[in-house]
Amino acid sequence: MASYHKPDEKTLQGLKDVANKLRINSIKATCASNSGHPTSCCSAAELMSVLFFNTMRYKPSDPRNQCNDRFVLSKGHAAPVLYAAWAEAGYVKEADLLNLRKIDSDLEGHPTPKLAFTDVATGSLGQGLGAACGMAYTGKHFDKSSYRVYCMMGDGECSEGSVWEAMAFASYYKLDNLVAIMDVNRLGQSEAAPLQHDMETYRKRCEGFGWNTYVVDGHDVEELCKAFWQAKQVKDKPTCIVAKTFKGKGLKNIEDLDNWHGKPIPKDRVDDLLNDLQSQIQVPNKKLTPELPNEDTLAADLSRICLPEPPAYKLGEKMATRKAYGIALAKLGKASKRVVALDGDTKNSTFSDTFRKAFPERYIECFIAEQNMVSVAIGCACRDRTVSFASTFAAFFSRAYDQIRMAAISQSNVNLVGSHCGVSIGEDGPSQMALEDLAMFRAIPTCTVFYPSDAVSLERAVELAANTKGICFIRTSRPETAVLYSPEEKFELGLAKVVRQSDSDQVTVIGAGITLHEALAAADILAKEGKNIRVIDPFTIKPLDAATILTAARATRGKIITVEDHYKEGGLGEAVLSAVGEEPGIVVTRLAVTEVPRSGKPQELLDKYGISAMHIVNAVRQTFAN
Amino acid sequence: MASYHKPDEKTLQGLKDVANKLRINSIKATCASNSGHPTSCCSAAELMSVLFFNTMRYKPSDPRNQCNDRFVLSKGHAAPVLYAAWAEAGYVKEADLLNLRKIDSDLEGHPTPKLAFTDVATGSLGQGLGAACGMAYTGKHFDKSSYRVYCMMGDGECSEGSVWEAMAFASYYKLDNLVAIMDVNRLGQSEAAPLQHDMETYRKRCEGFGWNTYVVDGHDVEELCKAFWQAKQVKDKPTCIVAKTFKGKGLKNIEDLDNWHGKPIPKDRVDDLLNDLQSQIQVPNKKLTPELPNEDTLAADLSRICLPEPPAYKLGEKMATRKAYGIALAKLGKASKRVVALDGDTKNSTFSDTFRKAFPERYIECFIAEQNMVSVAIGCACRDRTVSFASTFAAFFSRAYDQIRMAAISQSNVNLVGSHCGVSIGEDGPSQMALEDLAMFRAIPTCTVFYPSDAVSLERAVELAANTKGICFIRTSRPETAVLYSPEEKFELGLAKVVRQSDSDQVTVIGAGITLHEALAAADILAKEGKNIRVIDPFTIKPLDAATILTAARATRGKIITVEDHYKEGGLGEAVLSAVGEEPGIVVTRLAVTEVPRSGKPQELLDKYGISAMHIVNAVRQTFAN
Repeated sequence: MASYHKPDEKTLQGLKDVANKLRINSIKATCASNSGHPTSCCSAAELMSVLFFNTMRYKPSDPRNQCNDRFVLSKGHAAPVLYAAWAEAGYVKEADLLNLRKIDSDLEGHPTPKLAFTDVATGSLGQGLGAACGMAYTGKHFDKSSYRVYCMMGDGECSEGSVWEAMAFASYYKLDNLVAIMDVNRLGQSEAAPLQHDMETYRKRCEGFGWNTYVVDGHDVEELCKAFWQAKQVKDKPTCIVAKTFKGKGLKNIEDLDNWHGKPIPKDRVDDLLNDLQSQIQVPNKKLTPELPNEDTLAADLSRICLPEPPAYKLGEKMATRKAYGIALAKLGKASKRVVALDGDTKNSTFSDTFRKAFPERYIECFIAEQNMVSVAIGCACRDRTVSFASTFAAFFSRAYDQIRMAAISQSNVNLVGSHCGVSIGEDGPSQMALEDLAMFRAIPTCTVFYPSDAVSLERAVELAANTKGICFIRTSRPETAVLYSPEEKFELGLAKVVRQSDSDQVTVIGAGITLHEALAAADILAKEGKNIRVIDPFTIKPLDAATILTAARATRGKIITVEDHYKEGGLGEAVLSAVGEEPGIVVTRLAVTEVPRSGKPQELLDKYGISAMHIVNAVRQTFAN
Repeated sequence: MASYHKPDEKTLQGLKDVANKLRINSIKATCASNSGHPTSCCSAAELMSVLFFNTMRYKPSDPRNQCNDRFVLSKGHAAPVLYAAWAEAGYVKEADLLNLRKIDSDLEGHPTPKLAFTDVATGSLGQGLGAACGMAYTGKHFDKSSYRVYCMMGDGECSEGSVWEAMAFASYYKLDNLVAIMDVNRLGQSEAAPLQHDMETYRKRCEGFGWNTYVVDGHDVEELCKAFWQAKQVKDKPTCIVAKTFKGKGLKNIEDLDNWHGKPIPKDRVDDLLNDLQSQIQVPNKKLTPELPNEDTLAADLSRICLPEPPAYKLGEKMATRKAYGIALAKLGKASKRVVALDGDTKNSTFSDTFRKAFPERYIECFIAEQNMVSVAIGCACRDRTVSFASTFAAFFSRAYDQIRMAAISQSNVNLVGSHCGVSIGEDGPSQMALEDLAMFRAIPTCTVFYPSDAVSLERAVELAANTKGICFIRTSRPETAVLYSPEEKFELGLAKVVRQSDSDQVTVIGAGITLHEALAAADILAKEGKNIRVIDPFTIKPLDAATILTAARATRGKIITVEDHYKEGGLGEAVLSAVGEEPGIVVTRLAVTEVPRSGKPQELLDKYGISAMHIVNAVRQTFAN
């Protein structure tokens, strides 16, 4: 085993000097913007200095290089100290630090991937470690490379359960290339964090969750150098550095005091404090340089991933889209090794199990921890290392909505597949039914929302998702339904299919998933009455094919009926309203679930909540009456 | 200290017999419904028997009595064993158990408060303990009563971070009236839970999170009686009973085996298994009765809560609605002791701090754990013990969306107040901006969504929320804006205000919060051009005042412009489209944020994202051009 060499005094002094430079630049930047969190930067100054100039291996001029160690600033409000560290490394111009939080600067209030040295946006607390887990899992198991992953958290955010989901994950998967740092500066935003400086309780919790744990003085650069070095030697366990620090460290009459969260230093005090910090710097112009990384990671493969063969379903064959998902993903996995799958102990319900059976080494079981599953999937997809698909019941993505919201800010290309949508799942009852997922995902600005209605279009949705930038959500259904499309059918984002039409259609009915099949059943019944309707399958709810819908609506007296296995707000119906809202003369009638449903058989529930074929028939008859 | 008396052999045998009866009824019910989770019931049979017939004190004929001990079945999929226990207690008719999961039975797949013995719906895992924390906090600190709270969890759900948020909360607040039970039956849905039967790691984690912890054999009724008795003696700590159990316990060739999650017993095996269980029952017809509770809890006060005096703002005065929230809640707190407030370490930003300063004994600091905060607030509101208001940045309610979704199923009356909505917060950047919260809350079927635009209407929103059934969400804003209404103005759910009108209005503009003020500024500019517009403040986005909007639209050439500090999907614009979608001849133009925003000054951002007065002016001019 390698033995530890204490850095020489000059190096240690250099690290101390850098820490104070980071403090100075954090204070200057937040004074310039007249907002921000200088005291949260000051507690982390030595940690950042040691990480960036002693521990981590990276190319300062190429922060997103695939070989670099990764760094996630989970306590995103300490952004100025991150920006200052990259200025010290030479990547950010020091003068630019004063543009913090300005509308034309990428040095935002919290870091985002607009900056090449940021892989995931932070600022909603407790999310960094899950993403870091995904990066570390990828480094160890997919890239099989030597890059290491460092994640700095605040103590306040350790109250977030998502942190403990990630802690459990990392030890379960023995991520010894992962280091978490807890900057325990005692003070939260509005009062002390619950554990204050009770370092032993932090230690117990971290050890209880399976981590190699060092409690250290977070302002002692030598102790930090040693702890990070030790972490590199540990096998089969992630390491947590629990650093006792002081908020506002180094700032007289501010350090360790209440009421200094998120406040720039007052103008009448800033010069004294800066002079004080400056006076502690012994070698002002010395530049420290980081160690370079090993060149053992291939550049990302950005080629398109295609299904190796077209869908193998026959028209009319019964197949649930959730089941087709497993088959589709396994096919895609055959086409590219970059495809990986994650699930949260629902793999035998979402059918991600089909992929796992084909490619066990590319499947990550995340257990019942959806927040962390989504964060890990985001981490896996960073720097285009993988094309990740995470699945669970669509209802349970609501558990990770903050992570999904942040994934958009992170410019993530993660793919999320939610099964068991709507009342059509039947007996399990409302807790298991996704009825707000379309509203959730539609309101994510970078999100494509697929809602395939048969196995063929599901397979194409999976293929398209793998190649589509931004977040993709695929909504799958539990019931077995007929295959509607031939294997050759082409699908595109924002391209709807007219699945039933005649020259005498009087209403356009738009359904998706189970309700498209109900609409087709309704069309059959109505045809016998001599009433023809046009039926549209939107395929993607976002983007929605406004042109096809408008054309159909104009051909059917301006009358549209939407029918969805979803609450009335934010789903298919409102998406259609959105598409036609600026067109006069179009009337949209919406059938949707309007109350909390209950247990029952799928068909009973479709009837009870007004979205079955009979209800569509009645709604169509009413438009004829008007 | 009291000493433990071991129950006599007859009692112990009775508890064993009840456990097997619970197994039998769980199996019969799931066979009748041909779905459900009998093996998850069997692992918990002794735990349920001892809890219901040895430990808990309650009135079997009045399950929701305020004096009763509370029981939360966090592992809601074990519903049949809960129903069987209440059948054994005499509240549910045994024959009704066979109606499990039928559409006309309240014995649903997962328990909901349609059943008087259920306070909170479960079925989305990991949520029960947070609600139990709220009940225990209420019992100890608000009711000051002797009822105790028991929460049964599965081991699989202990992967959920929300569980550890609750664990930290309960020990921080020394909830010695709370007992958590972990039914460690080793097996999850699709594979073994991560810790399997590693009981010592469970112990370490629970102790690390500050709990008095007993690891027990979950099938040994005597050991359970003793552990629950010991838990009652412990002061200042919650107790966790970590019970080693076996999934499918008592079922030959099923017990402790994979692939039996969520599957009824096959027909060809059920008779043998039932006979086997039946044969172990020694005194088949013996009825055990629970101990009755102390009568030390007052009946809930259901009287209306009114502001003690009208709002004290002057027209035109500048006041941020977030700041007005603190003042309003403190006034309401003066009117009723039932009003309690919770926050997640943002109290100096949401201004719940104003309430805390007035009523520190009715404020619960939940630290940075929004899921748990919402669950605790739901727990506090159960059985109408309190009227709870929980606040954080509106963006961070996305962290608790699954809890909010479940709160609707729970028929909760919780009130949630989200500050810092939209781009108008400025420099902190997109991670702190709520831009999907209206979409989120609108899609909750029991939710009233308030979006007050000044301090007076904010105060009335808080008053209305306190008295409105279902979930209430109040969206508050960071910028200081002018008071629009006089103190006497009356506000009602679903009643919009026309804040600017003339006989010659040519467009109706609907804004809320900051965008209502931008709309008024636009109206001033346009008036100088001789272009009059009607401006509407909706007050509640759900329900939305369709009648007022339609009347205005008809008076303004069918033209509506909506403008919102929210993404385009699911917010004000789509709510308006929903309200007018069945009316021909109305055209809705929507101004909203359409991409992930960035840091900047509030006014710069309103401009950049197209929702400032100038953009409204331009949109109005365009409608004139058409």
